[in-house]
Amino acid sequence: MQYENLALHTDKYQINMMYAHWKHGTDQHRAVFEAFFRKLPFGNGYAVFAGLQRIVEYIRGLQFDERAIRYLSEQEERYDPEFLEALRSFRFRGNLYAMREGTLAFPEEPLIRAEGSIFETQLIETAVLNFMNFQTLITTKASRIKGVSPDDVFFEFGSRRAQEADAAIWGARAAYIAGFDATSNLLAGMMFGIPTKGTHAHSWVQDHHTEEEAFLQYAEALPNQVTLLVDTYNTLKSGVPNAIKVAKAMEARGRRMSAIRLDSGDLAYQSIKAREMLDRAGLDYVKIVASSDLDEHTILNLKSQGARIDLWGVGTQLITAADQPSLGGVYKIVAKEEDGALVPTIKISGNPEKITTPGLKEVYRLFDRETGKAIADYIALQGEEDVVRGEPLKLFDPIHPYLGKLAERYDAVSLLQPIFRAGKQVYELPTSEEIRAYHQQQIATLWPEYLRKLNPEKYRVNLSERAWSLKREMIEKYKM
Amino acid sequence: MQYENLALHTDKYQINMMYAHWKHGTDQHRAVFEAFFRKLPFGNGYAVFAGLQRIVEYIRGLQFDERAIRYLSEQEERYDPEFLEALRSFRFRGNLYAMREGTLAFPEEPLIRAEGSIFETQLIETAVLNFMNFQTLITTKASRIKGVSPDDVFFEFGSRRAQEADAAIWGARAAYIAGFDATSNLLAGMMFGIPTKGTHAHSWVQDHHTEEEAFLQYAEALPNQVTLLVDTYNTLKSGVPNAIKVAKAMEARGRRMSAIRLDSGDLAYQSIKAREMLDRAGLDYVKIVASSDLDEHTILNLKSQGARIDLWGVGTQLITAADQPSLGGVYKIVAKEEDGALVPTIKISGNPEKITTPGLKEVYRLFDRETGKAIADYIALQGEEDVVRGEPLKLFDPIHPYLGKLAERYDAVSLLQPIFRAGKQVYELPTSEEIRAYHQQQIATLWPEYLRKLNPEKYRVNLSERAWSLKREMIEKYKM
Repeated sequence: MQYENLALHTDKYQINMMYAHWKHGTDQHRAVFEAFFRKLPFGNGYAVFAGLQRIVEYIRGLQFDERAIRYLSEQEERYDPEFLEALRSFRFRGNLYAMREGTLAFPEEPLIRAEGSIFETQLIETAVLNFMNFQTLITTKASRIKGVSPDDVFFEFGSRRAQEADAAIWGARAAYIAGFDATSNLLAGMMFGIPTKGTHAHSWVQDHHTEEEAFLQYAEALPNQVTLLVDTYNTLKSGVPNAIKVAKAMEARGRRMSAIRLDSGDLAYQSIKAREMLDRAGLDYVKIVASSDLDEHTILNLKSQGARIDLWGVGTQLITAADQPSLGGVYKIVAKEEDGALVPTIKISGNPEKITTPGLKEVYRLFDRETGKAIADYIALQGEEDVVRGEPLKLFDPIHPYLGKLAERYDAVSLLQPIFRAGKQVYELPTSEEIRAYHQQQIATLWPEYLRKLNPEKYRVNLSERAWSLKREMIEKYKM
Repeated sequence: MQYENLALHTDKYQINMMYAHWKHGTDQHRAVFEAFFRKLPFGNGYAVFAGLQRIVEYIRGLQFDERAIRYLSEQEERYDPEFLEALRSFRFRGNLYAMREGTLAFPEEPLIRAEGSIFETQLIETAVLNFMNFQTLITTKASRIKGVSPDDVFFEFGSRRAQEADAAIWGARAAYIAGFDATSNLLAGMMFGIPTKGTHAHSWVQDHHTEEEAFLQYAEALPNQVTLLVDTYNTLKSGVPNAIKVAKAMEARGRRMSAIRLDSGDLAYQSIKAREMLDRAGLDYVKIVASSDLDEHTILNLKSQGARIDLWGVGTQLITAADQPSLGGVYKIVAKEEDGALVPTIKISGNPEKITTPGLKEVYRLFDRETGKAIADYIALQGEEDVVRGEPLKLFDPIHPYLGKLAERYDAVSLLQPIFRAGKQVYELPTSEEIRAYHQQQIATLWPEYLRKLNPEKYRVNLSERAWSLKREMIEKYKM
C-alpha cells in the first residue's frame, strides 16, 4: 500500500479543470502562477522558504502510471478516453522559478513562480503547496527556536508526535537546515545527511534490576556516546548520583561520559542542582540535555531562570508547529494567454487581503552597500530595469504614504532562481549542509529588530510603482 | 530520494538500546509494551482509534536493506559488525494486539499491545506511535466535526495545508472512516477506495473572459458533476446569478446542476440569500457547498444562524487538527522477562499522571444487555475471569471512592484483537467502508451525554481491583 507515484497527489478539481480545458482546446494555453503566503506564522519577523528539493523531485518524477489512468477512467466524471491518453504522455515541460531553500521570505511576495501550459501549471498546485507550506512552516519554527540561543546545541526529537512519516522525515530536515544540529530520526539522517543522536528510554532503566545497573550496562555497550536519562525514578536523589558513579567508573577506564538528560519536572531547578552535583564530582565536562515539550517560550524562560542546559531536545512543539500548524500559502494565477499573448489577471475579493497582485513579478532584496544589511524587498514587474541597474528607488507604501523612503547605494539581489526551463532541471540541489550555512548567512543580513521573538519590527516589502498601478487599474476594471 | 523502506523510520535510541541489549546478550528477552494516550483531544468525550492498517503494513515490511545497514555501519556509535548482521536477518516475530480501527477509545487504556523480544518490541515504538498518534487524532477530529450535523454531507479538502504528503493521504482516509463522505485527494481515493469530489478553482474563472463563460464551459465539459464556485468576483451580484443562468441552460438540455460553492465572506448570510435566489429560479435541487476554514465550532455557529448549507468542505482545521495538533500517545513497557518469567514493570514519576499501570492488561467494554449502550470500560489483568463470565463487577474509582458502581447484566467485549501472532498476520484488514460503518455503530453505543461537543460527561474507565492492587504495591516498592 506504499505509493511512490505522486501524480495523483492532487485535488480532483485540478484534473477536472485540466479536463475542461482539454475539452475546449485551451489546455496548451500559457499561464503563470505564483505561490506566496499572506501572513507570517508565530508572530515571527520572517519566514524561511523550504520545500524546494521535494518539489523538484516531485516534478521530475511527475507522470501518470497505468494504475492512475485506470483509476481516473472509473470516475463519475466519465473523462473522455482521449484525455486519459493525453495524461499518459504527460510530463512537466514548463518553467519553474523559486527562492533558494533557507532564504528569508516575507508576506505577499512570490516564493515560487510556475510558467507553462495551463494543463501543467494547474496540475502541480496541490502538491507544490502541500510541500512548500509544511516545510516552510517547520523551517521557520526551527529558525525561531534556534534564534533564542544561537550558541546552544539543538536536537530534533519529534518523530513520534509528527503528523505521519513524511512530516517526521521532512520535518527533521527542516529543523536541520534552520540551524538545528541533529535529529533522532535515522531515516532522515540517511536521506539528507543529517547527524543523528540517540540516548536511551525509560524502558531501558525499567528493564534492569536497578538504575545503576542499567546505566553501567549502557555505558559499557556504547562507550563513545554515553548520555544517561536520569528521571526514571527520582532525578536528583537517584538518577544524577547513579550517573555520577558511572561517569567515575568510566574515568577509571579513560572514558568520558557525554551528558545526562532531564525529561520531566522543573528543568530550571533540576539542571542547576545537577550541574552543581556534577561539578562537585569533577565532571564539569558532562553536559546537560533537556527535553520535555520545549519550544521557544519555555527555552527563553528556562534560560532567564538560570537553567544550566547545554543541549535542547525539541519535539512536538516544533515538528507540528503546534501554535500554528499550517502556513496558509496559496498558488494564484497572475497571467494568462489571450490571443497568443500573456496578459495579467487578478482575483477580486470582498476580503481586501485576498486580492491578488497581477502580472509576472520579480522579487529583489535590496542590501545596503555599507552595512550589507537588508533594506527592503522590492517587487517589480518583469522588465523593470531601474532596480537591476541600482538606480535610486522610491519605496512607497500605498496604504501609509508617510512611510515612503528613498533607497540609494544598494545592491539588488533577485530572489527567484530558475529551477526548470522547458521541463529541464537547470538548478543543482544544494546539500542540507549548504542550505544550513546559507540560512545562517541570511539571518546575518537582518537587523536585530526583525529577529526579535516578540513584536518584531515589520520588514519592508514594497511593490514598484508600475506593479502597483497595474493592480489599481485592474481593481477599477472589476469593481462593481 | 523517495523511500519505501521504513526500517530506519525510528529514533536512534531504539537502535542504541537494541545494541546495548545485544552486547549484553539480553536482546531476545521477552518484553511487553502497551500504547495509550493520557488525555482526550479537543475536549471531546471520546477518541477514535486509527492507524492499524499503516502499522500492519509497516510491520509486515519491516527489514533492514543494504543501504540501511551501510548507513548504520557509519555511525559514531561504531556498532559491532555482528550486530549489523543480526539486523540483516531481522523480522518481526512477536505478537501484536490492537483495537479495530474506528473503535471508540479512552485515556489510560491500551490501544495496542506488543509482545516479543525486547529487540523487536523496542524497534517499532517510534513508527507505531507516529502512525497511531496522527491517524487517531485526525479520525477523532473528523468524527467530532461530523457529529455536529450527522445528516449533512462532509468533504475533506485539506491536502494543500496538510503536514506533507502522508498527512494529506492518511488524513483523508481518517476523515472518511470517521464518517466524512468524500475527499478531494485522488491518491487517497485510489489507495483506500474513498469517493473523491472536485469542482474548480478561482483560476478557472480568472482564466476566462467572463465568469458566465467560465461557468458555461465548465458545465459543458463536465455535465455530470457541475458545482460552480461563485465567489471569484462578487458572490450575490455576479456569481449566483451567473450560476442560475447556467443551471437554466442545463435544464434546457435535460441536465441538472449539482451545486454552487461559497468559499469566502459571511457564509450564513450568503447561503440564505443564495438559497432564496436559487429557489425563486426553480432550482431547489441545486445544493450549496461551503468551505472556508471551517471546523466544528464555525459549522455549529453557522447552523444556529440558519445557514442553508447542505455540504461542508473542511480543510486546514481538520487535516492539521489545528486546535491540538498532536495526540501525545505513548508506548510503555509493562512487563519484562526475569529468570525466564514475565514480571510486571512500572515507571514512577514526580508527575502522578505519568506513572504507568504495570502488567499485561485486557480492555473490556461493558454493554448494558437491555439498552445495548456502553456502561464503562474495564481494564483487567490477563487471566481475570469474572468479567469474561459476566459476573457482577465492582467498578470503583480509587481517587473518588463515592463514584463506585456495581455492573450487572452486561456483555463484556474484549477490545484488543490479535493482529500478529509469532510474526504472522492473523487479522484481515477491513476496507475503509467497513471501518466507517463500524465506527457509526460504535457511536450509537454511547449515550448522548458523552457525544456532546462542549463539556461532555466523562466516560468511565476502571481498573480491576487486582490491576489496581498490583499498581499500588509496585508504587510502594519504588517510593523513596
